[in-house]
Amino acid sequence: MKTFATDIRVRYQETDNMGVVYYANYLVWFEVARTEFLRSMGLVYRDLEDKGYYLMVASLSCRYRSPVRYDDIVRAETWIEEMKNSSLKFGYKLSVNGKSVATGDSVHVFTNKSGKPVRIPEEIRSLPVDI
Amino acid sequence: MKTFATDIRVRYQETDNMGVVYYANYLVWFEVARTEFLRSMGLVYRDLEDKGYYLMVASLSCRYRSPVRYDDIVRAETWIEEMKNSSLKFGYKLSVNGKSVATGDSVHVFTNKSGKPVRIPEEIRSLPVDI
Amino acid sequence: MKTFATDIRVRYQETDNMGVVYYANYLVWFEVARTEFLRSMGLVYRDLEDKGYYLMVASLSCRYRSPVRYDDIVRAETWIEEMKNSSLKFGYKLSVNGKSVATGDSVHVFTNKSGKPVRIPEEIRSLPVDI
Amino acid sequence: MKTFATDIRVRYQETDNMGVVYYANYLVWFEVARTEFLRSMGLVYRDLEDKGYYLMVASLSCRYRSPVRYDDIVRAETWIEEMKNSSLKFGYKLSVNGKSVATGDSVHVFTNKSGKPVRIPEEIRSLPVDI
Repeated sequence: MKTFATDIRVRYQETDNMGVVYYANYLVWFEVARTEFLRSMGLVYRDLEDKGYYLMVASLSCRYRSPVRYDDIVRAETWIEEMKNSSLKFGYKLSVNGKSVATGDSVHVFTNKSGKPVRIPEEIRSLPVDI
Repeated sequence: MKTFATDIRVRYQETDNMGVVYYANYLVWFEVARTEFLRSMGLVYRDLEDKGYYLMVASLSCRYRSPVRYDDIVRAETWIEEMKNSSLKFGYKLSVNGKSVATGDSVHVFTNKSGKPVRIPEEIRSLPVDI
Repeated sequence: MKTFATDIRVRYQETDNMGVVYYANYLVWFEVARTEFLRSMGLVYRDLEDKGYYLMVASLSCRYRSPVRYDDIVRAETWIEEMKNSSLKFGYKLSVNGKSVATGDSVHVFTNKSGKPVRIPEEIRSLPVDI
Repeated sequence: MKTFATDIRVRYQETDNMGVVYYANYLVWFEVARTEFLRSMGLVYRDLEDKGYYLMVASLSCRYRSPVRYDDIVRAETWIEEMKNSSLKFGYKLSVNGKSVATGDSVHVFTNKSGKPVRIPEEIRSLPVDI
């Protein structure tokens, strides 16, 4: 299995004046999805940071298809779309009750503590890429 | 002048474990830039909502060029890149001390309270588009 | 059982420059705890709002005992400390790996849509109060 | 002058489903008020961290008097209520158009990078305490 799904209950804090989830919070769910995807592969992102690796975001895109509401359960799916020497591209699909509400992707660069790009560590390199 | 700039002081709340600003918070600054851009044109977004117009986000992209730190002053520039019958595309450029730290754009659809797209109201239609 | 516990994984977004969770985010966990406590009692807060009841916060206190870090699992316990005609007081205890990291309480007033206090609805009135 | 005021425009991101500002965001404004208070006294909190001092929160209380809405300008006043060997107590008053909307206080402990309490540095010690 190359795609991983995690379910996230929408918090009141994530909603806004319009009665739907504020657009920046989709990116927080992407983060939760990445973390749980790595955990499902036996990798703990916190451990990577402890070893001196950081994932700096380079780009982000999101297409918002349908509003999401308080207390909805969002299914967040993620997968690795591309792997280069020092960067990773994640794909995302968010859905509520089987209906797609958003899609997106983000590119992250592996760096050391001082922000210099480094080669992706072996334990990440061996992850499946969904092409 | 078709581009509007607003200065935003980075809050401690906006930083994360990596010692830089969390990636979703750039979208909050985009929101502040849009609001102040409209205000500079004599339009108050709150008034638009009071009149029954809502700006639903349809898509977002952001390129992160350089990290931003606590207490930095972010200059957020925005402009209208495109105007269609019921949608607007905003462009963004964020910089700190004259150095570009991020660029992005977002598309928003004008809707009524129930989420149905409507024609952009006249006061918005007359805004300058930066082509 | 009068106390309800829910487990919350700390998000990267919730951390700050100091490498620990930002202090305002404890209040978000209190919210999650309240929602899940009510759900465990068969009450869905979203349904209460649909019926025209709102829970406006009146006061909040929190004692921070120990910092919480990214990826920790926070056990959030909550209970009703006091119930008056139109207000409820919740107590909270947060812990990580069995160690208390914070305690707090909050008072909320039941109001109608326009903000006027109303008598607590019967389904809430029948909840156990932990004295 | 022992009390410092800073004006903060309410962001859309800070609102919630109820059409008012989410309760945790008052604590973000308290943070902005503390930072600007120190700056008005010639102290930059970022510099304190660079020198190895950290302000860990120990307790927080807030009384919510009236809801705050999107685009309101919140006047945030803060002052030092108490200074002990290694801790500070700040008081807060938030108002909109001259009307008090919230009051609060918070206690912070000065620590070193590893979290051990230290004596408040001299530049802080010389700040006025409002008694």
